[in-house]
Amino acid sequence: MMNPTGRLFFYFGARRVDGGRHLRDELGGKGAGLAEMSSLGLPVPPGFTISTRACAEFYARGGRFPRDLRAQLRRHVALLEAETGKRFGDAERPLLLSVRSGAAVSMPGMMDTILNLGMNDRVVAGLARITSNRRFALDAYRRLIDMYGSVVMGVAHDHFEAALQRVKRRRGARQDTDLDERGLEEVVAAYQSVFRRHTGRRFPQDPGEQLAGAVAAVFRSWESPRAVEYRRIHHITGLPGTAVNVQSMVFGNLGGDSGTGVAFTRDPATGRNALYGEFLVNAQGEDVVAGIRTPGPVAGIKRWRPDLYAQLLSIKDKLERHYRDMQDIEFTVERGKLWLLQTRTGKRTGAAAVRIAVDMVREKLIDARTALLRVAPADLNQLLLPSFDPRAKRTVLTRGLPASPGAACGRLAFSADEAVARAARGEPVILVRRETSPEDIHGMHVAQGILTATGGTTSHAAVVARGWGKCCIAGALHTEIDERRKIITIDGRRYTARDVFSLDGATGEVMLGELPRVEPRLSAAFVTLLRWADRHRRLGVHANADTPADAARARAYGAEGVGLCRTEHMFFDPGRIQIMREMIIAGDTPARQRALRRLLPCQRRDFEDIFRVMRGLPVVIRLLDPPLHEFLPQDAAAQSALARELKVPVARIRRRVTELHEANPMLGHRGCRVAVTYPEVLEMQVTAIIEAAIRCRRRGIAALPEIMIPLVGIDRELILLRAQVERVIAGVCKRLKFTGRLRIGVGTMIEVPRAALTAGEIAKHADFFSFGTNDLTQMTLGYSRDDVNTFLPDYLRQGILDRSPFQGIDAAGVGQLVKMAVQRGRAVKKNLECGICGEHGGDPASIAFFASAGLDYVSCSPFRVPVARLAAAQAALRNR
Amino acid sequence: MMNPTGRLFFYFGARRVDGGRHLRDELGGKGAGLAEMSSLGLPVPPGFTISTRACAEFYARGGRFPRDLRAQLRRHVALLEAETGKRFGDAERPLLLSVRSGAAVSMPGMMDTILNLGMNDRVVAGLARITSNRRFALDAYRRLIDMYGSVVMGVAHDHFEAALQRVKRRRGARQDTDLDERGLEEVVAAYQSVFRRHTGRRFPQDPGEQLAGAVAAVFRSWESPRAVEYRRIHHITGLPGTAVNVQSMVFGNLGGDSGTGVAFTRDPATGRNALYGEFLVNAQGEDVVAGIRTPGPVAGIKRWRPDLYAQLLSIKDKLERHYRDMQDIEFTVERGKLWLLQTRTGKRTGAAAVRIAVDMVREKLIDARTALLRVAPADLNQLLLPSFDPRAKRTVLTRGLPASPGAACGRLAFSADEAVARAARGEPVILVRRETSPEDIHGMHVAQGILTATGGTTSHAAVVARGWGKCCIAGALHTEIDERRKIITIDGRRYTARDVFSLDGATGEVMLGELPRVEPRLSAAFVTLLRWADRHRRLGVHANADTPADAARARAYGAEGVGLCRTEHMFFDPGRIQIMREMIIAGDTPARQRALRRLLPCQRRDFEDIFRVMRGLPVVIRLLDPPLHEFLPQDAAAQSALARELKVPVARIRRRVTELHEANPMLGHRGCRVAVTYPEVLEMQVTAIIEAAIRCRRRGIAALPEIMIPLVGIDRELILLRAQVERVIAGVCKRLKFTGRLRIGVGTMIEVPRAALTAGEIAKHADFFSFGTNDLTQMTLGYSRDDVNTFLPDYLRQGILDRSPFQGIDAAGVGQLVKMAVQRGRAVKKNLECGICGEHGGDPASIAFFASAGLDYVSCSPFRVPVARLAAAQAALRNR
Repeated sequence: MMNPTGRLFFYFGARRVDGGRHLRDELGGKGAGLAEMSSLGLPVPPGFTISTRACAEFYARGGRFPRDLRAQLRRHVALLEAETGKRFGDAERPLLLSVRSGAAVSMPGMMDTILNLGMNDRVVAGLARITSNRRFALDAYRRLIDMYGSVVMGVAHDHFEAALQRVKRRRGARQDTDLDERGLEEVVAAYQSVFRRHTGRRFPQDPGEQLAGAVAAVFRSWESPRAVEYRRIHHITGLPGTAVNVQSMVFGNLGGDSGTGVAFTRDPATGRNALYGEFLVNAQGEDVVAGIRTPGPVAGIKRWRPDLYAQLLSIKDKLERHYRDMQDIEFTVERGKLWLLQTRTGKRTGAAAVRIAVDMVREKLIDARTALLRVAPADLNQLLLPSFDPRAKRTVLTRGLPASPGAACGRLAFSADEAVARAARGEPVILVRRETSPEDIHGMHVAQGILTATGGTTSHAAVVARGWGKCCIAGALHTEIDERRKIITIDGRRYTARDVFSLDGATGEVMLGELPRVEPRLSAAFVTLLRWADRHRRLGVHANADTPADAARARAYGAEGVGLCRTEHMFFDPGRIQIMREMIIAGDTPARQRALRRLLPCQRRDFEDIFRVMRGLPVVIRLLDPPLHEFLPQDAAAQSALARELKVPVARIRRRVTELHEANPMLGHRGCRVAVTYPEVLEMQVTAIIEAAIRCRRRGIAALPEIMIPLVGIDRELILLRAQVERVIAGVCKRLKFTGRLRIGVGTMIEVPRAALTAGEIAKHADFFSFGTNDLTQMTLGYSRDDVNTFLPDYLRQGILDRSPFQGIDAAGVGQLVKMAVQRGRAVKKNLECGICGEHGGDPASIAFFASAGLDYVSCSPFRVPVARLAAAQAALRNR
Repeated sequence: MMNPTGRLFFYFGARRVDGGRHLRDELGGKGAGLAEMSSLGLPVPPGFTISTRACAEFYARGGRFPRDLRAQLRRHVALLEAETGKRFGDAERPLLLSVRSGAAVSMPGMMDTILNLGMNDRVVAGLARITSNRRFALDAYRRLIDMYGSVVMGVAHDHFEAALQRVKRRRGARQDTDLDERGLEEVVAAYQSVFRRHTGRRFPQDPGEQLAGAVAAVFRSWESPRAVEYRRIHHITGLPGTAVNVQSMVFGNLGGDSGTGVAFTRDPATGRNALYGEFLVNAQGEDVVAGIRTPGPVAGIKRWRPDLYAQLLSIKDKLERHYRDMQDIEFTVERGKLWLLQTRTGKRTGAAAVRIAVDMVREKLIDARTALLRVAPADLNQLLLPSFDPRAKRTVLTRGLPASPGAACGRLAFSADEAVARAARGEPVILVRRETSPEDIHGMHVAQGILTATGGTTSHAAVVARGWGKCCIAGALHTEIDERRKIITIDGRRYTARDVFSLDGATGEVMLGELPRVEPRLSAAFVTLLRWADRHRRLGVHANADTPADAARARAYGAEGVGLCRTEHMFFDPGRIQIMREMIIAGDTPARQRALRRLLPCQRRDFEDIFRVMRGLPVVIRLLDPPLHEFLPQDAAAQSALARELKVPVARIRRRVTELHEANPMLGHRGCRVAVTYPEVLEMQVTAIIEAAIRCRRRGIAALPEIMIPLVGIDRELILLRAQVERVIAGVCKRLKFTGRLRIGVGTMIEVPRAALTAGEIAKHADFFSFGTNDLTQMTLGYSRDDVNTFLPDYLRQGILDRSPFQGIDAAGVGQLVKMAVQRGRAVKKNLECGICGEHGGDPASIAFFASAGLDYVSCSPFRVPVARLAAAQAALRNR
């Protein structure tokens, strides 16, 4: 709804309410809430909101007020005087006003509040008389001079603070509250002289001048450097300006029958349906903020003033029925009367969001669709992981990037081998590395958590850890790791293998000692919400799973298949990596084949186990992807050990390592390129898959493998390798005399930009496409995932990027290629199945994009499956 | 023209010619030439060609002859008998035939030739009688049995060879020619028994059976594995099959009045308009090939038989007038009569191609357009470089990839510093490195040539060397380089700094010792041809030039501007790299700025010099592109030296090197990303450019710089940096009180796939696009230029790629992005200037693509400018 009258002032009070939440663009969030509560008949101190359009006009007129703004101000103050029976600037029955900014979007950097407008040397005396509290009146006055001086006139607040300190020193007062009336009189006098000295004028005694000055200051704060910067970085455009809220003052600090509080209509931590908050008798809001006195729970009001508590409960119901959501309110009790100062939608934890949404459906406040849209999918993640007891005391050593959530404790291990050895003895360890590489996989697997000194949220450590749902903190600040000497130095202090660290993967905090943990429980509400989600979503949700354990977890969390089974991790098992290395060191094809024949039974067993877990659901297996050098040891000692074990000269191993060294391994000899040069590797892997599938089938297990060829960029690669895959399948079936129909799809990853560009050609030879958006992002933007943190922080800070493109899909670039490939692929093959198996598969915003791009499914880490199910439902609901 | 009659046999002879060159698809190249020569009335032994369609029908019928093929064969043999007055299989006047394959495209792997068909035990006697040469007749017969047995019947040639050796041993003959009549009789008998033993049949005495067998063998050879593989790899499709040429035999070995020869109608090395070739009296073609006797120059015929020489000259004129091109002919003289056996377009050197094309225009044989299309642009390159005297004896140590042409000699230098030191003493050196990196630039610059043990034609060494037109051989085989001990080991033999090598960049040969060289001369024909090219081309040709010397060379070769001036090479100068390093080591912005202030005058001087050379022509300057770590020393000794020089602890340098280390530097912190994090670098560079331009303008020199921002992927990068560039320009103009109009375009490179995909957004803020197709290829295909040689050879061998995408643009993938970007960019900015400055700018096939993509210009290394001018003209002529 719009406001067609061109009205700039919106009154709210008991007698009349001009605005409402439909005018949020003009009233701002705060103003809309005040109007709405007034309309509901709730006790709101009357006031009025000046439209954001007045602010726009202020700027259009070069920083001058719109023509009749002063007249309207006077007119609306008169309305307030009429309603309250007080008069602005009158010493007998003074009307005091507050002025607050409030745009349609919450925005730091704008002016917050000026209180107590309307006081002057005469009014202060009147107020003292009326309230019988001269100390209160003087305190209110000196606060006005301070706020007005600094916010409206630009006098540095430090000058007022210094004057206050001088008075306090002189009078031997420790706290502000130690000052008596005489003291406060001196403060008022001192503030007035600060004001005069820095502005060249007296503090304005005309309340009208005060009010106009405060309104202009709010307008000006819209263009303050911080607010402008904030809008630039967050790309907030199209807003006309800020609204101004002028409201009559109420006071919670007028004695034992007054007080101030904040409350949530439900528990924001658990979602329990009960009033939750804090209250402080005889105090203003700012006293609570200053932390001088500790407020008690809001339930305490029940004993203090049962009638007010009952009134609060009825307000809770009224607001929830009206807004159909949990509210966060501010209120003040002035001499026994309750006043509401603000209402807004309350922030909540993931657990609370789920419970509130499901409860409200039961209470018939909302329907299931609304409930699904209410919960931020990312919030589900924390529900699946253990966390530290929030009551435990934390000794934070440093902070890093919260790369993978969870709560981990253990002694420090400085190498993968050390971690494996010590974990084998039952010792919980934290693996500490400058950065991790695929060589560290076995150590990462046994560690409780992983801590790195470099790398970001998409570094190797982070990606692997997230895939496993293992806690990881990457790029810890002020941290140096000496892996050889096994010392980690944080802020100049050293820690060794004997120290215990606790990692909070949700916050990125690294703490000394072992903190107590609380285990997650999947609530009934959680299960209910996801059942609703499945009913609404159209996008399938599969999981990336490399082991039977991963697969089992994926299935438990509701995955409909394995969208990516990476076969290379299977080779890092200590029993296998030596054979793998033997294969790589081998000088010719027969020698390589001999090594591969020994790997075959291991891979077959892995596949059988995974097929058994996933029975009846598809398992997309990606053939070997990483470059071979990742399997060879890089340091001299490990190379010597390998040479001894394989009984070859160490020089040969070193030569092979040198041969395989690449300047840019990400763009090197990997993916299907390895299969082109070493077809025997593909042959072994396909043989293992088919033998495993046949063994399962013969035991009545519905194994549904599909074979995925990675890093294809040219249709001819796929033609060549697909023919080879089919030859091997036919060969195995013949050898094992299997005559049933296997129907194994052979598809490809779309992760090289060229593959997307030539998808029409590639689709002719592919049964499915799976977008590898990690690599596609690397190549489309030219960002190495391992190195992006050298410049990404600058890019985010300067607003070039809003988010790491490895976290949220870059829709305009990478996403354009995804859409293009889907379109071109399906133009050739109408029912081409298209999915995505990069990191983005578990990111809600990206999932919404993939739904709009027409993908059939997303595949993500098992721990992200619930997130993806919910995000997929939201995408479907929003696209309707 | 087609052959609508469905005719399968095409006779050629004095009485009748059925075919001609318009039927090349059916007759194949050889058959068309024979028919054409017959039509011209030239002396060709009569014969007939069986159409390629007969071959197709042969396969369609499952390997059986088309219905009336045998009857037609008989009919056409009868025609030959009538024309020659001989009879096939007749002992008195035997007609002997040859059978040869010949498809429309020349193709290795198919059957070549069977000679002497029509001989049997009776005919051999008759032939001996007629020729009065029983030895000749027996020799012809044993050759037939060998060829027929191996080619038609599939008997391994080794069996015949072993039988021959046995006879030779028995009769004490060293050479075949040492065998007398008795010996040859034994050979014939032995061959016949080999034939019988391996085929189970007698050698066929029926000439008709021989002919049918030979024809079938030709048909079958079309599907031989090698021929099929060749067609697969070269993507030759759509050909129906091979033709079969049956021709009556003539003999050059019938005595002193006979002979055989090959000739070019012009000198294929120089293009001189004179008959050029070889001739051997009393010999068959195969004797020449076997190398037992050395033929003399064809001009020798003038003394031997002046009448035949005059006949050859008249044939030369007739063929050139007819084909309007230089021909390569084969001929035989049988007892004083000249017979032509083949004509085809002659291969020639680049110099000859240019001279022949220009001469033929003068001779009014062709027009200038035809001349321009006749010369392969790549051939021009060799005309600009010195080469080794072809008469010099070569001691080839090894071969590598001919990465950059030229001929270089010098003593070996094993490091850049050593090369610089020794070159400074006037010693010519060859820089020998395992592979080069930007740190080696100063050494590469002073070296005569560069030799690397690893890396391919697009490695760092190759690319830099090509840019400078410096000789380079990359990836030398069987070569190990010990840079520390300064030893290069080739095939197990060691060479040191005292040895002199000669590198032939045209062949990739590495030779010991100093070979004599011949310097190139730009012929008048060369200049003429390029003048014609400029008249026809529409694409502009600019050059990549980093120094005034490069720029001068570019201008001399006809470049119309500098399309890419890389500023980073300017920093590798020994006097500057230390300051650059100081800047990189600096801990904060002010320290960086101090170092940059010292670099400013150096850069300004470089720019001034380049502007002076290029006066009146545009110079596109790319801001710093490589990652900073390329400027730091990687080895410990150099790091220590740097630490001493900069007076900082070596640990600090090591830490900075570690900090700047990247896993994939190609996708790391480089290009405009450096400018985003270190804006002071951009500021210094732009200041240098503008100050240089203003100084030139004030001296009346028309400096026309344009500023190019590299590696942009996001429009916001360009918005941010462009604003910064413009701020600096305005600042410099104000400071120097320059009030003229500089009009400096600010554009961007399109080298990240995302930039091409979002070109519409980027074009809004760019005055021009310059495609960096090296990087665009790397990212679009996911191939690291430095690592691609790990799999590229396999890709080429298996036909996945036809050519390295770094040499010829990948039109379907990378090219698609180029077209898309041009289109989207111009949709936003109609006259957006688009050029390309990658390696592909000098590649003729790529230039044709760029012309079709609508680019305005290509920019290439100065040495490729003539190539590009010609290729651009060809593109324009072909697109008309």
